[in-house]
Amino acid sequence: MTQFTHLDASGAARMVDVSEKEPTARTAVASGVLRTTAEVVGLLGSDTLPKGDALATARIAGIMAAKRTWELVPLCHPIALSSVKVDLVLGDAEVRITATVRTTDRTGVEMEALTAVSVAGLTLHDMVKAVDPAASLDAVRVERKEGGKTGLWERK
Amino acid sequence: MTQFTHLDASGAARMVDVSEKEPTARTAVASGVLRTTAEVVGLLGSDTLPKGDALATARIAGIMAAKRTWELVPLCHPIALSSVKVDLVLGDAEVRITATVRTTDRTGVEMEALTAVSVAGLTLHDMVKAVDPAASLDAVRVERKEGGKTGLWERK
Amino acid sequence: MTQFTHLDASGAARMVDVSEKEPTARTAVASGVLRTTAEVVGLLGSDTLPKGDALATARIAGIMAAKRTWELVPLCHPIALSSVKVDLVLGDAEVRITATVRTTDRTGVEMEALTAVSVAGLTLHDMVKAVDPAASLDAVRVERKEGGKTGLWERK
Amino acid sequence: MTQFTHLDASGAARMVDVSEKEPTARTAVASGVLRTTAEVVGLLGSDTLPKGDALATARIAGIMAAKRTWELVPLCHPIALSSVKVDLVLGDAEVRITATVRTTDRTGVEMEALTAVSVAGLTLHDMVKAVDPAASLDAVRVERKEGGKTGLWERK
Amino acid sequence: MTQFTHLDASGAARMVDVSEKEPTARTAVASGVLRTTAEVVGLLGSDTLPKGDALATARIAGIMAAKRTWELVPLCHPIALSSVKVDLVLGDAEVRITATVRTTDRTGVEMEALTAVSVAGLTLHDMVKAVDPAASLDAVRVERKEGGKTGLWERK
Amino acid sequence: MTQFTHLDASGAARMVDVSEKEPTARTAVASGVLRTTAEVVGLLGSDTLPKGDALATARIAGIMAAKRTWELVPLCHPIALSSVKVDLVLGDAEVRITATVRTTDRTGVEMEALTAVSVAGLTLHDMVKAVDPAASLDAVRVERKEGGKTGLWERK
Repeated sequence: MTQFTHLDASGAARMVDVSEKEPTARTAVASGVLRTTAEVVGLLGSDTLPKGDALATARIAGIMAAKRTWELVPLCHPIALSSVKVDLVLGDAEVRITATVRTTDRTGVEMEALTAVSVAGLTLHDMVKAVDPAASLDAVRVERKEGGKTGLWERK
Repeated sequence: MTQFTHLDASGAARMVDVSEKEPTARTAVASGVLRTTAEVVGLLGSDTLPKGDALATARIAGIMAAKRTWELVPLCHPIALSSVKVDLVLGDAEVRITATVRTTDRTGVEMEALTAVSVAGLTLHDMVKAVDPAASLDAVRVERKEGGKTGLWERK
Repeated sequence: MTQFTHLDASGAARMVDVSEKEPTARTAVASGVLRTTAEVVGLLGSDTLPKGDALATARIAGIMAAKRTWELVPLCHPIALSSVKVDLVLGDAEVRITATVRTTDRTGVEMEALTAVSVAGLTLHDMVKAVDPAASLDAVRVERKEGGKTGLWERK
Repeated sequence: MTQFTHLDASGAARMVDVSEKEPTARTAVASGVLRTTAEVVGLLGSDTLPKGDALATARIAGIMAAKRTWELVPLCHPIALSSVKVDLVLGDAEVRITATVRTTDRTGVEMEALTAVSVAGLTLHDMVKAVDPAASLDAVRVERKEGGKTGLWERK
Repeated sequence: MTQFTHLDASGAARMVDVSEKEPTARTAVASGVLRTTAEVVGLLGSDTLPKGDALATARIAGIMAAKRTWELVPLCHPIALSSVKVDLVLGDAEVRITATVRTTDRTGVEMEALTAVSVAGLTLHDMVKAVDPAASLDAVRVERKEGGKTGLWERK
Repeated sequence: MTQFTHLDASGAARMVDVSEKEPTARTAVASGVLRTTAEVVGLLGSDTLPKGDALATARIAGIMAAKRTWELVPLCHPIALSSVKVDLVLGDAEVRITATVRTTDRTGVEMEALTAVSVAGLTLHDMVKAVDPAASLDAVRVERKEGGKTGLWERK
């Protein structure tokens, strides 16, 4: 029967044992999109030139949050991240967020990539909320992960 | 001209000055939805009975994250939260997340409510990822906020 | 019927609403005891003279942990502490720990005092573990609390 | 002469050098007991069925705290934990707490297991304090540790 | 006799009691300077145009660290900051850092301003260390503080 | 052309990829000096005998901060530190601070050593500020680093 690995037979939460796994190179890419208004996108910059620190703030917040994933998500393992990259692309009325995270460890980094996207998105929410309180963070999801026993997974 | 309050005239990021504001009672409600599969929802519980600690873990992660919003979102003020509540409702192939946060302070708590929703959503992502790697966190947004100078705002 | 205030009617965890409470001066005193060996107590110091930084390390760890109680205990409110004091008294084969915490806020500080005692005790455990792996932290409990609607409570 | 490894020859606190040690598999088990009342145990659940999120909250708080041991205990090394499990067993008028922690690293994890027990205990204290302010956390101690140069140690 | 307020009569560290103080508006300004090379300053930008996120990263790191001062400096009180501003000015072979912090609380914010300067400086150190390993952070000090019982203090 | 490794070709901040690097033994030594008054140095102790916990508090704060460098400096990697030592030497009107940090990891630890020095210095600032508000933290810089591809670097 299928069951969540984060719960034991009685249903109690636990941090699953990865001590038998080998440390291997692993990569995860996650994405999301902050839907807002054309006016807000104009305030953030043109597609080639940011206006002020708004995008940098979101980028840095995403990177810093990736490192703290295990403090936020109760059953995540502490992982030594090898790299974190957060890309922000301005659209017509949205900002597309992509995070790429790498490690050489015993467990995957898709949660770290998802956390980077979410906190970059929250930081954009914070930046724009006085102008667009109706903004929405959408489609926070894994695009691709690689490495470890399960190998490559890509969103279709 | 419209401008982000989080940036000064030169575009530099700053934590805006709220010292002139009065502490008043403020409430914010945010929501989001984790889209997954019917199988996953079945593993999480029926609509009246959770199976094990999965939902409790997400609820607690959301509450704890709300308190740490100012550590995650660079330009947020530290705020003394008076209450945090995270509700999870199982649908057919999704989990609906709602967070309600209250304070008596100089600034609003919509970022705290959005953070609670996001981290509860990330925790559900983590719980279900082995069964459904394609899950997506959608529509993380403010539903309602109340209190302070701007008064009531409700999503239409 | 008696019920935990930290759970709602359905049993879900929540951070209870204290927004209707008045900020008042509150004090809590908690205590505990690390039971170890006479040899370890000799290494820690005589009752008037500590040897090196061992006791200072425990004292400081307790003070710092009191400030982070709300990060550790999921349903605790963030509280602005006005003072924290951790006293360590060497006995024959034990160290007695007492923490006193004060605030002017909407909720009591007994959890902060208990956390200071526990983390000071853990730090002593860490200091002595190579010499006495069998040490035990006992009787971590509230001695007295004062202020707020419930007024004075003292251990009998 | 016996001396604490956490202090140098002059008595100054330091984080001891483990760089010469080999990373090996290590396990530690710690335990403790929250002494309270039969009424409180009844509110927490029967021995087979918890009532609401109370026990889950303590379990998750203990797991999360284990990961942050090095932030709380000043001279502990940051360790990559492989697994954490917190078990709570209801007795007549007490809750028995056991934590099991594993790692593959250069130093043992008994402090992580003790921290998990302490913070799970603090969280139970917080849950029950309105009903039983006199509750006491007792006998927080190592039961067993394994791995590394010193090998197996078990409480007699 | 003069004595540190952070130590009690026996010399033990404590967090001093501020519960009798009134919350009042307080401001502190601190400064520091990262001495590096003309080449590094050229890489950071001209005096009117930063190149990339380097300065934004330092600014944001300083702001975020100000909020966490009480986690870093053991005897500091947790304080609700009303605003934080970090200014970076490029010189010939140095970067001048100024931080301004405001609060309405029971104790001053000079430690928060000094922490913002230090961590902004550390972040610049990190940015430039591959090009200039010999960089030095100098003259981290209070320039001015205002508010509270002691009133205005200005560096002469 | 010379460029900061922390910025990509477009100038965006990133955490650089160290996954191709081998974990090797690395050491870094950093130093700094708190310039204050002869009176303050007298309150801190003689050169052989500290008075109370003041120096211990700074030493412990420095050690604890070294472990949290990656939380403070946005683009630093999380590193498993093998040892941290903070030495404080009293001069005539100054305190000399030296931190030595070791790891076996993929990247150097000079930022960890610099952070230990800075936070020990901030803690001394905090301790003395009521007596000497004009104190200044100077010359926070790397003295020596060793290990990794670049090998030994020493300040001339």
